[in-house]
Amino acid sequence: MVVSIGDTFLAVDWGTTNRRVFVIEQGRVVRTARDGQGVTSVDDFPASVAALRAEHGDLPMLLAGMVGSNIGWRPAPYVSAPAGIAELAAGLLRIDARTAIVPGVSVDHPADVMRGEEVQVLGAVEAGLVPRDALVVQPGTHCKWVELAGGRITGFTTAMTGELFALLRTHGLLAAQLGGEVTPGDAFRAGVEEGRKRDLAASLFGIRAAKLLGQRDDADAAAFASGLLIGGDAAARLAKSRHDAAYILADPVLGGLYVAAVEYLGGTAYLIDSHAAFTAGIIAIGNHS
Amino acid sequence: MVVSIGDTFLAVDWGTTNRRVFVIEQGRVVRTARDGQGVTSVDDFPASVAALRAEHGDLPMLLAGMVGSNIGWRPAPYVSAPAGIAELAAGLLRIDARTAIVPGVSVDHPADVMRGEEVQVLGAVEAGLVPRDALVVQPGTHCKWVELAGGRITGFTTAMTGELFALLRTHGLLAAQLGGEVTPGDAFRAGVEEGRKRDLAASLFGIRAAKLLGQRDDADAAAFASGLLIGGDAAARLAKSRHDAAYILADPVLGGLYVAAVEYLGGTAYLIDSHAAFTAGIIAIGNHS
Repeated sequence: MVVSIGDTFLAVDWGTTNRRVFVIEQGRVVRTARDGQGVTSVDDFPASVAALRAEHGDLPMLLAGMVGSNIGWRPAPYVSAPAGIAELAAGLLRIDARTAIVPGVSVDHPADVMRGEEVQVLGAVEAGLVPRDALVVQPGTHCKWVELAGGRITGFTTAMTGELFALLRTHGLLAAQLGGEVTPGDAFRAGVEEGRKRDLAASLFGIRAAKLLGQRDDADAAAFASGLLIGGDAAARLAKSRHDAAYILADPVLGGLYVAAVEYLGGTAYLIDSHAAFTAGIIAIGNHS
Repeated sequence: MVVSIGDTFLAVDWGTTNRRVFVIEQGRVVRTARDGQGVTSVDDFPASVAALRAEHGDLPMLLAGMVGSNIGWRPAPYVSAPAGIAELAAGLLRIDARTAIVPGVSVDHPADVMRGEEVQVLGAVEAGLVPRDALVVQPGTHCKWVELAGGRITGFTTAMTGELFALLRTHGLLAAQLGGEVTPGDAFRAGVEEGRKRDLAASLFGIRAAKLLGQRDDADAAAFASGLLIGGDAAARLAKSRHDAAYILADPVLGGLYVAAVEYLGGTAYLIDSHAAFTAGIIAIGNHS
């Protein structure tokens, strides 16, 4: 059974809570649709896929994201880095002759995984948005820092930066202090400087102590904490990377914080509009399969 | 108004949720009592103190702990380090001629505070449990690492190690993996080794990735996470300290984890039974006031 996708197909970026469908004809996106049918709200994947074909056209389909995880339709094994478009295409999980799931990418030591981000990162290269040799950042709940060499993913690190910030903001000692706005100003930069120490558990208690000693207003505490977390993450990654420039795939708000942190730490940062990246990646995979 | 305490008085170790009363006669503890009247469950402190005197004797009183915080009776200002018994005695917050609250201790750069721990740490010196020049550790929700020189607290660092572990165990991505037992075995030591990298946000995601890649059983994940947090904390503190021996004031279970981490990192660790430390400290303060 060989999956043949080609240049005319339905691509689905199928996440945990949402999905987006792209109708691709002759290598170009002609229509998109978005709905709330993420993998956690779908029980019958064959029926769901049939419904998509009924709505958008009876075409081959390429599915990416959490649909290929153990909470999705079927687990698509990870492809080991280094991995580019060709390796993803070769590693497709074939459901039937016209339907396939894009694999995630893994590294073994230290253990790390991605699922969904790989299409966007490699698509950004395909679209000419980032160089073939680069450090690419995808901020978020679990921030990915991806090393690209020769247009392939050669390694990456995931940091729970966004999740830790959300936990601290919602639960525990510091929650009451962290209600303020986060902007890349002085308090954020002071947090990035503190983050350089890479001593997170102690630096976090310092937020409490600074309040008790009257050293920082709580209006600035959230920005400081964000800077601390993002700064610690960025400092660790820049120390390890061959690159001192980071290409940041994100919206301007969150992306702007990463730009500020990388620049404060002496690196160069480019904020990349990532809207075209997923489709460029999935079209390239379709062409290779 | 001068507070005179002397060697016969009531000492109260008055925390957030519990308090312990020590009846001290001629410098010796003759009776103790414990109840659930922590500061968060007391509205009328004068009445509560009067009731303690009615029950245990109409004596001078020294109160320590959260009773002197902004959620307690009245905020007792912090004494700046370096601080020993004499500085705490000189900094007592005098409520009336027979009642005083022991101040906390602060350091300014980087900001840090303690309130309650100072009596135990300095009492451990008074009791001969730890040397006058030493690194003393009080593990817990907010772990204190205290530098002693000449029998005085010269500096300290608080790490939110225990709180972070509790947050991760209860909320978020890793919670489902972290239900296992924590013992100082191989998985704990592997966590300490990972903690050396001082890259917490990334190391935490590695716990998830190791599961997805089949590299570690979830039965070991909690011990690994505990080792990661304690190891990162201990590595940062040992790197900064003049000492390579740590005196750990804790129960054998939690204290045993810190012993294992410090020893794995090449330091020497002594587990100290801290029961006598608080009373030795508060008796010394009474003698000085």
